[in-house]
Amino acid sequence: MKIGIVGGTGDIGEGMSLRLSQNHDVILGSREAEKAVTTSECTIDELRKRGKPCSCRGVCNQDAVDAGDVIILAIPFTHLASTLGSLHGFENKIVVSPVNPMEKKDFFIFVPPPEGSAALMVKKILPQNARICMAFNTIAANRWKALDEELDVAVPVCSDDSGAKAAVMEIVRSTSHLQAYDAGPLGVSPMVESLTPLLLNIARYNKMRDVGVLFR
Amino acid sequence: MKIGIVGGTGDIGEGMSLRLSQNHDVILGSREAEKAVTTSECTIDELRKRGKPCSCRGVCNQDAVDAGDVIILAIPFTHLASTLGSLHGFENKIVVSPVNPMEKKDFFIFVPPPEGSAALMVKKILPQNARICMAFNTIAANRWKALDEELDVAVPVCSDDSGAKAAVMEIVRSTSHLQAYDAGPLGVSPMVESLTPLLLNIARYNKMRDVGVLFR
Repeated sequence: MKIGIVGGTGDIGEGMSLRLSQNHDVILGSREAEKAVTTSECTIDELRKRGKPCSCRGVCNQDAVDAGDVIILAIPFTHLASTLGSLHGFENKIVVSPVNPMEKKDFFIFVPPPEGSAALMVKKILPQNARICMAFNTIAANRWKALDEELDVAVPVCSDDSGAKAAVMEIVRSTSHLQAYDAGPLGVSPMVESLTPLLLNIARYNKMRDVGVLFR
Repeated sequence: MKIGIVGGTGDIGEGMSLRLSQNHDVILGSREAEKAVTTSECTIDELRKRGKPCSCRGVCNQDAVDAGDVIILAIPFTHLASTLGSLHGFENKIVVSPVNPMEKKDFFIFVPPPEGSAALMVKKILPQNARICMAFNTIAANRWKALDEELDVAVPVCSDDSGAKAAVMEIVRSTSHLQAYDAGPLGVSPMVESLTPLLLNIARYNKMRDVGVLFR
């Protein structure tokens, strides 16, 4: 699968490219193509050191959208609308939002946009025939990056497009030991996105790190 | 600990009394005391059959409030405000809300009251010196009742009263293999309460039953 990562030089995007480029062709995007090239070189080095396969190249965000069959929006919520507004060509692409709209006050809180969730906002902004999915919300950047540890947490996936959802669940399953769960239509995404601030609170109040979730 | 269960003859209340009465004095309340007596007799029978200890008696809801040091509100969200309005004497008591405001449409959705969560609504309704906690939200009634299986899921606990929170976390830890997590102040409760409809969706779309949550 050709996976374009918009915001691939951020913490989450970097971690994702380290994992996903082992089984997929990752096209790592950034606002500055040069930065993306540097990050993709680091990704290749890290994986080569470990004797793992890697397909990764750095480009600008628009090129990542153009080259990917699946586009992952690895950007903070605060930049989501402006970044999407600066890009085009999402028609018929599978677009994955791992974005969690949240704020830190005395504790972490879920602060959704009027649409109800980041994923539902993406759906409203992008063309109607973009195939919006929500996935990968609850995995901390450090866990993505800790290549010597398995990623063995649950990943709820939402979409109103069953084909797109199945494809994204396949990508989840191809990644370390991640467990893919069908969480239903995109209307369920607020309940998944609000899990991330909860996990950050659980980590903080129980002196844990990079807490993930499992279902049993 | 003396634990009063308001709504003790409902599905969740019955299940709770089967577990909690093994280590605590459960005062099981109902709108009709007779119904509570019948349920408490069933609880005693079930536990005796298994050779387990049991302290449980059935009374009306008001007597459960009066007799308990800790009061658990095992009532559906739709009856929460009216039930609390019909009761008194919550001053200085630890009051635990396991209530999840949700609806089933095409899927399960979190539908919080204006206060942000059921627990925050309880805080607004009850006297200022009631010691409100949120706990036990994500445990399905069937799991409470399945006495031949361990309860081995995570239980996030929220409160603005650290002493009350510690006491409730102790009750959680005393119950089967439940894992208590400090989820922070009551302001975090919306993110916990919305976990329950998410778990119901996960169960439904993945053909699972009575899904619980773990943190790792």
